[in-house]
Amino acid sequence: MYHHVKKLMYTVNIGEPDVKFGQMLLEQFGGANGELAAAMQYSIQGLNCDDPKRKDLLMDIGTEELSHLEVIGSLARMHLKPLKDQKRSAAESDPLIAVVGGGGVGPYNSQGNPWTADYLKISGQIEVDLRSNIAAEARAKITYERLINHTNDPGTIDALKFLMTREITHMKAFMAALESLPKGPLEVGEMPVDDEYVNKYFNDSTGEGELGEDSTGPWNSGGDWEIVENPAFQEIGHR
Amino acid sequence: MYHHVKKLMYTVNIGEPDVKFGQMLLEQFGGANGELAAAMQYSIQGLNCDDPKRKDLLMDIGTEELSHLEVIGSLARMHLKPLKDQKRSAAESDPLIAVVGGGGVGPYNSQGNPWTADYLKISGQIEVDLRSNIAAEARAKITYERLINHTNDPGTIDALKFLMTREITHMKAFMAALESLPKGPLEVGEMPVDDEYVNKYFNDSTGEGELGEDSTGPWNSGGDWEIVENPAFQEIGHR
Amino acid sequence: MYHHVKKLMYTVNIGEPDVKFGQMLLEQFGGANGELAAAMQYSIQGLNCDDPKRKDLLMDIGTEELSHLEVIGSLARMHLKPLKDQKRSAAESDPLIAVVGGGGVGPYNSQGNPWTADYLKISGQIEVDLRSNIAAEARAKITYERLINHTNDPGTIDALKFLMTREITHMKAFMAALESLPKGPLEVGEMPVDDEYVNKYFNDSTGEGELGEDSTGPWNSGGDWEIVENPAFQEIGHR
Amino acid sequence: MYHHVKKLMYTVNIGEPDVKFGQMLLEQFGGANGELAAAMQYSIQGLNCDDPKRKDLLMDIGTEELSHLEVIGSLARMHLKPLKDQKRSAAESDPLIAVVGGGGVGPYNSQGNPWTADYLKISGQIEVDLRSNIAAEARAKITYERLINHTNDPGTIDALKFLMTREITHMKAFMAALESLPKGPLEVGEMPVDDEYVNKYFNDSTGEGELGEDSTGPWNSGGDWEIVENPAFQEIGHR
Amino acid sequence: MYHHVKKLMYTVNIGEPDVKFGQMLLEQFGGANGELAAAMQYSIQGLNCDDPKRKDLLMDIGTEELSHLEVIGSLARMHLKPLKDQKRSAAESDPLIAVVGGGGVGPYNSQGNPWTADYLKISGQIEVDLRSNIAAEARAKITYERLINHTNDPGTIDALKFLMTREITHMKAFMAALESLPKGPLEVGEMPVDDEYVNKYFNDSTGEGELGEDSTGPWNSGGDWEIVENPAFQEIGHR
Amino acid sequence: MYHHVKKLMYTVNIGEPDVKFGQMLLEQFGGANGELAAAMQYSIQGLNCDDPKRKDLLMDIGTEELSHLEVIGSLARMHLKPLKDQKRSAAESDPLIAVVGGGGVGPYNSQGNPWTADYLKISGQIEVDLRSNIAAEARAKITYERLINHTNDPGTIDALKFLMTREITHMKAFMAALESLPKGPLEVGEMPVDDEYVNKYFNDSTGEGELGEDSTGPWNSGGDWEIVENPAFQEIGHR
Repeated sequence: MYHHVKKLMYTVNIGEPDVKFGQMLLEQFGGANGELAAAMQYSIQGLNCDDPKRKDLLMDIGTEELSHLEVIGSLARMHLKPLKDQKRSAAESDPLIAVVGGGGVGPYNSQGNPWTADYLKISGQIEVDLRSNIAAEARAKITYERLINHTNDPGTIDALKFLMTREITHMKAFMAALESLPKGPLEVGEMPVDDEYVNKYFNDSTGEGELGEDSTGPWNSGGDWEIVENPAFQEIGHR
Repeated sequence: MYHHVKKLMYTVNIGEPDVKFGQMLLEQFGGANGELAAAMQYSIQGLNCDDPKRKDLLMDIGTEELSHLEVIGSLARMHLKPLKDQKRSAAESDPLIAVVGGGGVGPYNSQGNPWTADYLKISGQIEVDLRSNIAAEARAKITYERLINHTNDPGTIDALKFLMTREITHMKAFMAALESLPKGPLEVGEMPVDDEYVNKYFNDSTGEGELGEDSTGPWNSGGDWEIVENPAFQEIGHR
Repeated sequence: MYHHVKKLMYTVNIGEPDVKFGQMLLEQFGGANGELAAAMQYSIQGLNCDDPKRKDLLMDIGTEELSHLEVIGSLARMHLKPLKDQKRSAAESDPLIAVVGGGGVGPYNSQGNPWTADYLKISGQIEVDLRSNIAAEARAKITYERLINHTNDPGTIDALKFLMTREITHMKAFMAALESLPKGPLEVGEMPVDDEYVNKYFNDSTGEGELGEDSTGPWNSGGDWEIVENPAFQEIGHR
Repeated sequence: MYHHVKKLMYTVNIGEPDVKFGQMLLEQFGGANGELAAAMQYSIQGLNCDDPKRKDLLMDIGTEELSHLEVIGSLARMHLKPLKDQKRSAAESDPLIAVVGGGGVGPYNSQGNPWTADYLKISGQIEVDLRSNIAAEARAKITYERLINHTNDPGTIDALKFLMTREITHMKAFMAALESLPKGPLEVGEMPVDDEYVNKYFNDSTGEGELGEDSTGPWNSGGDWEIVENPAFQEIGHR
Repeated sequence: MYHHVKKLMYTVNIGEPDVKFGQMLLEQFGGANGELAAAMQYSIQGLNCDDPKRKDLLMDIGTEELSHLEVIGSLARMHLKPLKDQKRSAAESDPLIAVVGGGGVGPYNSQGNPWTADYLKISGQIEVDLRSNIAAEARAKITYERLINHTNDPGTIDALKFLMTREITHMKAFMAALESLPKGPLEVGEMPVDDEYVNKYFNDSTGEGELGEDSTGPWNSGGDWEIVENPAFQEIGHR
Repeated sequence: MYHHVKKLMYTVNIGEPDVKFGQMLLEQFGGANGELAAAMQYSIQGLNCDDPKRKDLLMDIGTEELSHLEVIGSLARMHLKPLKDQKRSAAESDPLIAVVGGGGVGPYNSQGNPWTADYLKISGQIEVDLRSNIAAEARAKITYERLINHTNDPGTIDALKFLMTREITHMKAFMAALESLPKGPLEVGEMPVDDEYVNKYFNDSTGEGELGEDSTGPWNSGGDWEIVENPAFQEIGHR
C-alpha cells in the first residue's frame, strides 16, 4: 500500500514563471517518456513479476518515479501559473490548460495529447521488461537534457538535473539486474532460434543518394555475420 | 525509393485455417510490438539519422520489417479466411474483421485496437534509438515465441520461427551498433549527471507482504552503490 | 513523496481462477471508472488545488486509490493466472494479455482498450472538481456492484465489497467538502448567469413513441420553471 | 426522429474575427466538456433509460445540446474565417484547421485533439447518470466562463452567456431529477456497503510541505467519521 | 436548431434477442462507418459549406443519419437486453457493455473501441467532401449487407434493409451533387497539376508470386497512359 | 518483398528552412490524408484483394506512396532542421518534435497528433475500396494545394507539385479501375436495395436562417426522385 508525505522528493524553487517552458515540461509529466509512464510501466511490471528480488527493484523504482511525477508536476505548475490569471496572451499559448484546466497541470504531453497506456511496454518476461526499462530511462535522460538546454532558470535547472541524474541511476540498476540473470545477451525467452537465418544480414536498402549509402560495420560484417543481398534472398525463404 | 516484388520474403503454407489463431497473429501485424511498428520505428529513425553508417543499418532493417509485415499479413489472412465466407460463428469471434473488413486483415492488434504511432519510440539520438530498438526486438521475439506455443500447424510454425529468428538477428545488429559507438554504457547524450545522486539507490518500497519483500542484488549493493532509505531522503533534495 | 509498503491495503484470497472474470476485473484496473483513473484524477486535482484543506482531502483519497489499484490488480492477476501457462483455450479469451503481456495484468479495460487520460475530469475549480469526483465515485460503486453480481467466489466478493464500500466513503467525503464551500448548489465559478433564460425549460423532444412520451416532473414544472415549447423558442434567442 | 430547422437556437453576430479565440472556442465544439459530448452523453443515456419521465428529460436536454453545437460551431466558424483565406500567418496558428479543414470548424478540441467517446460517462443507472450530468454541466459552465474572460467582442459574449446560462438550467433540472428519486444521497445501485469500513477516513497523505499540510473538515471529522491513520490500517483489511 | 419527435424513423420489432448480433450492430452505431460518423461528417461539412444548395443537401442527410442513429441504437439495445439482466454468460461476451454500461448501448464499435472523430473526413472543399461522402455511403452499404447476412430475424432484417437502402439513396444524391458541379471528374481545387507526370503510371510492384502478378488494365494502359518501370524513374524526378 | 534504394523518388532541395512550414508538412507525413495513410490503405487493401489485376494496381500505388513518404519526410526534415540546434524559439513552436524527437520528423500530423489506423478505410470489397481511394486522393490533392499556397520556396513548391500531381494520377487510375468493374455506379455488394425507399429524398432540414435555406437540385428533384417532407414520413417506416 502507498503512503504519501506532503513533501516533494526534491524541493523546487523557480524565478520568473515561463509559460512556454512550462508547456514543454508537461512532456515529462504526461508525455510518452515522462514520469507517469515510468511509474506505471515499472509498477505494473512489478505487480506481475514472479522473481521476488527483481520485483522489489521494479517496485522501488516505480515508487520513486511517482515521487518524480510530483516534482515535475509542481515545477510545471509554477511555470504555468500565469495561465491561472486568465491572461489572454498566456491562454493563447495553451488553451487546453488555460480554458479547460484553469491553469493547472494536466495529464497531457507538451502538445496537449492525453496520456495513453499505449506508451507502456509490459511483457511479463523479466529479461524483456528490463531491456524496455533501460531504453525508457535512456529516452527520459535525453529528454531532460534537452529541456535543460531550453531554460536559464537556476532553480529549474537544479530540479531537472536531479531528475535527469536519477534516470541514469535507474538505467544502471536495470542493467545490473539484466546482467545478473542466467541468460546470455541474445537469449530471450525459452525457444531456440533457427541457426540457418540468425547470422545472415539482409542488405535490403542499397545504393547511394539522399538517404545515405551502403556501408558495413560490426553489425553486418566480421564475426559470424554473412551479408545476403536482397535479391538473392528471394530464393531462400520457403518450406 | 521503394520497389516491391510480388514474392513473400518467406513463402507461407498452412493447413487448416484457425480463425482464433489468425486473430492472435494480428498482434504482430498491427500490434504494439508488431512488424508495422518495427518498420516505421526504424525507417523514421533512419530518415532522421545523421550517422551515415547506422542510417544504413536502420534503413536495411526497417525495409526488412516491411517485408515481414507482408509475411505475417499473408499468414494471418490465410487463418482468417473463414471470416470471408460470412459464417456467423466465425464472425462472432471477430466482428471488426468480419463485418467491417470483409474478412481481410486490418491494421489492428489481436483485440481490434487500431495501430497508433504512440507505440513508436523515436528520439533522434542514436545511442537512445538503438536501445529502444534492442528492447523492441526482445519484445517481438517473446511475442513470436508465445504465438508459436499456441499453434500446431507446421507451416505456420515454420514461418513464425523464421520471423522470430530474424528479431534476434536484428537485436544482435543493434547491439553491435550500440557497442561500436564511442560512448560508455551509461553515457546518454552530452550532459553530465550529478555525482551526488547517481549512485544512490532509493529504497522506496519496503517491508514484506503479498507484493514481495525487500531485497538486495547487484542493482543496489556492491560497487559504488549506496542504499538510501526512503524516509531519510526527505532531507536531501533541495536547493 | 510516496512510500510503498509491500502489503496490500486489503489481503486478497481467491478460490479457482476465473479467466473471464479476471478480464472483467480489468475494467476497474485500467478502465474508464477504475482505480488508476480515480488515483490520477484526485492526485492531479490535488496538485493543482490552492485550498489547503481540500487539497489534503484530494491527496488522501488519491493515495488511497493507488492502494486500491494494487488490490484490484492483484485480484485480477490471480484470476488471469491460467493465461500465464500458455493454455490455448485461455489465450483465446484474451490474446492481448496472454500473448503480449505474458499473462500479467495490463493497463487496459475489460475489452483491451488502453487507459487514456481522456477518462479524467480535472477543471482546476474546486466546486467543479468535487462534483466530477462525486460522479466518478458513483460510477465506480455501480461498476463494483455489477462485478460482484458476476462471481460466486467468496474471497473475490470480500475484496470487491471492500473496494465498493470505500467508493461510498469517498463520495460522502467529497459531498461534505462540496457542501462546506461558501457557494450555493447552483453557483459554479464567479460569473452570474442570465436571468432571462435560466429558468426556462426547453421542450425539444416531443410526442410519444418508441422513445417514450412527453412528461413533467420537478425538473421542468413547479417552482420557478417555465416550459418553452421548442418551436416558440425560435423567436427568442437573438441580439 | 430528428427535424432540423435552419435557424440557430441563438442568433450569432460578431465584430472582428479573432482566429486565436476561434481556436479556443473549439473546446466547446469538439472538446471534452463541449456540446457534442453533452449531446451524445444525454441522448445515449436517454436511449437506454427505462424510466419514461427521466428519459424524456434526457432527450430534451440532449436535443438542446445538439442545437448548442450548431451555435458554438457557427460562432467558431466566424472567428476562424481568416483561415479560409489561406493567409500564412493565420494558418500557422492552426494548421489542422487551415490545411486539412480548409478553414472550417472540425471535431477537435482547442489543441486539435479529435473528439473521442472516451469523454462520455454513460452507466445505464439513472442515479449515476444524473450525477455524471450534473458534473458535466458544472464543467461546461466554468469553461464558458473562462472563454468569456478571453474576449471583448459583445456579440460573442452574448452568445456565450446564453450557452453558459443554459448549462446552469440543465444542472438545476438534473439535480431536481436526482432528488426526486426514491433514494438517499449515498445510495447508489442496490447492493449495501460494508458498515465496518464506510465511515472510516484513511489518512493516507500526511505531514506538511510543498503539497500542503494535514487537516480536518466535515469530510473526515464530526458526524460518524472515524479517522484511521495510514500505517495502522495495514492490520485491518483481510479475510 | 433541432427538434426531436419520440418516434423512430423506422419502427423496430425483433424476435429473440441475440446478444452477439447486438454487439455486431454496434459497428453501425459507434463504428467507423456507422450512423454517428455519417451524421457528424455531413452536418459539420454542412455547417462549413458556402454553397447554399449543397449545404441544404448536407444538412438534410446529416439530420437523417441522426434519425438512423436512433433506429440502429434502438435495434442494438433490443438485442443487447440480456446484458441488462446481469447474466454471467451474456456479460462475458461484452463486459464493457454489461459491466460499465449496465446493458445499454454505448458509443463503441463492435469490438468496444470508443468512437473517434478520426473516422471523419471533412475538407472544406465541396468536390472533395462529396467524394468522401460517396465512399462513406458505399462502406455503410456493404457493412449493412454483411450484418444482414448474419441474422435470420425478420424484424431485424427489415430495419437493416431500410437503413441499407437509404445509404444508396444518399450515395445517389451525393453523386448527382458532384456531377452538377462545374468541374471535370479529375479537377480538384484550383491548382493545375504537372502535365509531365500526371499520365505516367509507375510500375512499383513487379514480378509474380503469392502477392499476384504484374498486369495491365484501363488504369495503366490505353488512352494517354504511359507506363514507367520503377528503376527507370530514378533518373526522372529532380530539380 | 520490399527493396529500398537510397534515392528519393523526387530529389528535394530547399532554400531557407521554415520551421512553421515544416510543421504543416507533417500533415502529409503522419496526418489523416498523408502519405503513410495512403501507403498503408492501398497496401493492406492489396494484400486482401482477390482480383489479381486490381491487386497489382493497389500494390503499385501503395508502394509509390511509400516512396512519397520518404520525399515528404525528407522535405519536412529540412524545414525542421533548426529544431535540431536546440534553439529555444524554434522549440517553442513544436516542443514534441524538438524535445522528444530531437528535431527529426515524427509520425504525427501538423498539430502533433500521433498517426492512427483509424484514418484508414479498408473494406475488403473492391468497388468500395476504390471509392475510398478516389476520395482519399482528392483529399490529398487539396491538402497539397493548400500547403503550396503557404510557401514561396521554389524547391519546396516543385516537390509538393510533383506529389500533388501524382495524387491526380492515382485518382485517375482508381476511377478507371472502378469503371471497368461489371457493376453500375449505384451497385455496391450483392444485396438489392428496397425499391420503396431508394428514390425518396427526405427533407429533414427545412426553413431558412443562418444555416441556409431549403433548396432543390438534381440530388432531390427530376429523374425518379420523390421528395418526402420530414413530418409526413413518420407514417411510412414500419413493419
